[in-house]
Amino acid sequence: MLEALKEKVYRANLDLVRHGLVIFTWGNVSAIDRESSLVVIKPSGVSYEAMRPEDMVVVDLDGNVVEGELRPSSDTPTHLVLYKAFPQIGAVVHTHSTYATAWAQAGLDIPNIGTTHADYFHDAVPCTGAMTEAQVWGEYEKETGNVIVERFEGMNPVHTPAVLVRNHGPFCWGKDAAEAVHNAVVLEQVAKMAQLAYSINPSLTMNPLLVEKHFSRKHGPNAYYGQKKK
Amino acid sequence: MLEALKEKVYRANLDLVRHGLVIFTWGNVSAIDRESSLVVIKPSGVSYEAMRPEDMVVVDLDGNVVEGELRPSSDTPTHLVLYKAFPQIGAVVHTHSTYATAWAQAGLDIPNIGTTHADYFHDAVPCTGAMTEAQVWGEYEKETGNVIVERFEGMNPVHTPAVLVRNHGPFCWGKDAAEAVHNAVVLEQVAKMAQLAYSINPSLTMNPLLVEKHFSRKHGPNAYYGQKKK
Amino acid sequence: MLEALKEKVYRANLDLVRHGLVIFTWGNVSAIDRESSLVVIKPSGVSYEAMRPEDMVVVDLDGNVVEGELRPSSDTPTHLVLYKAFPQIGAVVHTHSTYATAWAQAGLDIPNIGTTHADYFHDAVPCTGAMTEAQVWGEYEKETGNVIVERFEGMNPVHTPAVLVRNHGPFCWGKDAAEAVHNAVVLEQVAKMAQLAYSINPSLTMNPLLVEKHFSRKHGPNAYYGQKKK
Amino acid sequence: MLEALKEKVYRANLDLVRHGLVIFTWGNVSAIDRESSLVVIKPSGVSYEAMRPEDMVVVDLDGNVVEGELRPSSDTPTHLVLYKAFPQIGAVVHTHSTYATAWAQAGLDIPNIGTTHADYFHDAVPCTGAMTEAQVWGEYEKETGNVIVERFEGMNPVHTPAVLVRNHGPFCWGKDAAEAVHNAVVLEQVAKMAQLAYSINPSLTMNPLLVEKHFSRKHGPNAYYGQKKK
Repeated sequence: MLEALKEKVYRANLDLVRHGLVIFTWGNVSAIDRESSLVVIKPSGVSYEAMRPEDMVVVDLDGNVVEGELRPSSDTPTHLVLYKAFPQIGAVVHTHSTYATAWAQAGLDIPNIGTTHADYFHDAVPCTGAMTEAQVWGEYEKETGNVIVERFEGMNPVHTPAVLVRNHGPFCWGKDAAEAVHNAVVLEQVAKMAQLAYSINPSLTMNPLLVEKHFSRKHGPNAYYGQKKK
Repeated sequence: MLEALKEKVYRANLDLVRHGLVIFTWGNVSAIDRESSLVVIKPSGVSYEAMRPEDMVVVDLDGNVVEGELRPSSDTPTHLVLYKAFPQIGAVVHTHSTYATAWAQAGLDIPNIGTTHADYFHDAVPCTGAMTEAQVWGEYEKETGNVIVERFEGMNPVHTPAVLVRNHGPFCWGKDAAEAVHNAVVLEQVAKMAQLAYSINPSLTMNPLLVEKHFSRKHGPNAYYGQKKK
Repeated sequence: MLEALKEKVYRANLDLVRHGLVIFTWGNVSAIDRESSLVVIKPSGVSYEAMRPEDMVVVDLDGNVVEGELRPSSDTPTHLVLYKAFPQIGAVVHTHSTYATAWAQAGLDIPNIGTTHADYFHDAVPCTGAMTEAQVWGEYEKETGNVIVERFEGMNPVHTPAVLVRNHGPFCWGKDAAEAVHNAVVLEQVAKMAQLAYSINPSLTMNPLLVEKHFSRKHGPNAYYGQKKK
Repeated sequence: MLEALKEKVYRANLDLVRHGLVIFTWGNVSAIDRESSLVVIKPSGVSYEAMRPEDMVVVDLDGNVVEGELRPSSDTPTHLVLYKAFPQIGAVVHTHSTYATAWAQAGLDIPNIGTTHADYFHDAVPCTGAMTEAQVWGEYEKETGNVIVERFEGMNPVHTPAVLVRNHGPFCWGKDAAEAVHNAVVLEQVAKMAQLAYSINPSLTMNPLLVEKHFSRKHGPNAYYGQKKK
């Protein structure tokens, strides 16, 4: 069932390790098959060394395990909320990557202060608000998804495919697992550059024209970065 | 004698190098066989490249060498104090890992400011107080153990399996050598994230609800992270 | 056509990855054949893994593609402006290397505060001014070249072969592709040392005598660093 | 001539690269044969990849080349001053390692704030004063040695085998080439930990008792770290 998607999700999980975003079992990737509304996700707490493609778990959008011997990632309910709220996305990545997590712990949005950021994220990468007692002791992972969705009210999740969950860490997404991992790598790099830039000049300023220019150069209707799509 | 434990302690010592926590001879791992009350520990000042499993030294809880050609680690008396004071633990790790040592030199506890921390350490990772002249010029390594135990008065060493010895560096522990090394890796990562987070926002705050939630999610009676224990 | 130069430009592009200055497609190297006034440059948005020497694109100084199946780097117009304004240079490198980009985002020149800097860059590595609306929405990449050239008024681009484009990242150059990449590696190292040095002592000072001494030791008429040129 | 020493100096130079202290040609190691008063040193500006043991240059204490086809390192006069002033040392290392150089650029001593420091360096690692016009435009490299020796007045160079040359970088030494490189690695680590510790707590304090204890534990007459010398 969904063997090709399992293979992609499996590889994307390993790519998190290869890119230095994840140690131990501190990350997970899922992807959705929009036709069947089934989600393929990493099993919980299984080491990346031992993991095989067939260990990926298939769940429906209500979180029922449809196929798989192992428990799905404990963060599964967060992924599912994002798939339901953002119909344009095809994959979700969660990591505790060092610099992005530091910004999440700092409780601050990562401001858009350079073209590296603007090439991928139109806005500041937003940090969610504090979770309430009801949210934490209720369906915590689902509520984590809800605070993300709430934070994106009025924002386009495709234009800014990343978020920081306050005191926790980043979630990223994309049209497929490879793009979601790509965005997670970029986010970490952008988070590091921003930490350094503010340490050099706490009162730095961004030229807002560059945000629009760089974003539209790669993503707008007249994008001209890269090779022409055939 | 205790060949299986020697092998585990040997591997755990090499893992410190593999995880980038130790250069030269700057670290040591021990483990205890609670049945015989014998401790297996790395020899002092032997390079990791030259070391073999059979070089591990066996000592009793009074520090007498029971087996082994080489001197045990000069930090052995610290390990022994911890085994005596914390009967729940099975292994001890000492490193001079960069970020944890920086916090130790700063003389500050590492506050619990994120779920990465809370997944492993319930409380702030505590920093010990200054050692007195009598302690330093007396049985120094044993007194190092004593200041750690003193600092844990009223704290559960299993819930927060790490400490910073002021102006020195971290000690970690766990149920076995692999877990103690795992905790040392996590501590270093948590120390780095905290250094960065405070550099981004010196007045950051933690949501205390997340501490309880994440700790109990992994360690509480209703833990649901990872696969079911069989 | 220009096969030897293509090979050099190809290798120089890979060297950016090897030196850790570039991830994904975030960098580009070009070199000019001054005899024919033709420029060899990396194609746009092609991964370094897939790239081959014959994929390098040949353009004239007006940006017309003279040979090659692929689109040239979207930054090509910036490179061309530099070749026209700085007739002494033979190659140009653009990266988003972490520390140099952080200084560009900070909007500050990297001051010459050490002999490592002075060995390669006579002056502070300058940061360009903000771009205007006309520049950003006009021929943006060409105007990026223009703000660099403007910033170098009264400066010798051979003595200080690097610049920071504000809120964007570094451009470096040299007599050939290998030297331009070398300078990009040095710039990143110098940027890191400067970030650290100011974090240690915000009111540090440089001995201006050392600037002249070290620069002339390597680059002056009586240079005596290295082996005698044969 | 001195083939065994050439081999050791050659290997020590490569070890600088292996330990990440040196890129390109930014470092050099020498060692002295005290019997003949001849010094073996790396040639100037030769890449580490191309270098062979037989490329090492032999010079006398006045800097005359006694054997070798290549020019000796341009820093040779600094090394020679140190050998003459510090008769106890057998080897000298110069690098531009990142964190130690950042402290040199900051113009500050690296304070002894932890046992990692105290295990190797009794005092703060001192930073030299500014060089005068006469020193810079005179015999610059020799005068660099002189400002180091001046800075060590009243200090024991064996107890604190490292110095920061202001706005330049570190020199280290030891009884032989391997120990001098070892000290250069430790210095870089100590410099990084100190930068981090002060960024965490600018008003941190050191327990002076630990300095004496740790230094004497490894280096005093009753040293008990490591295995007994046979």
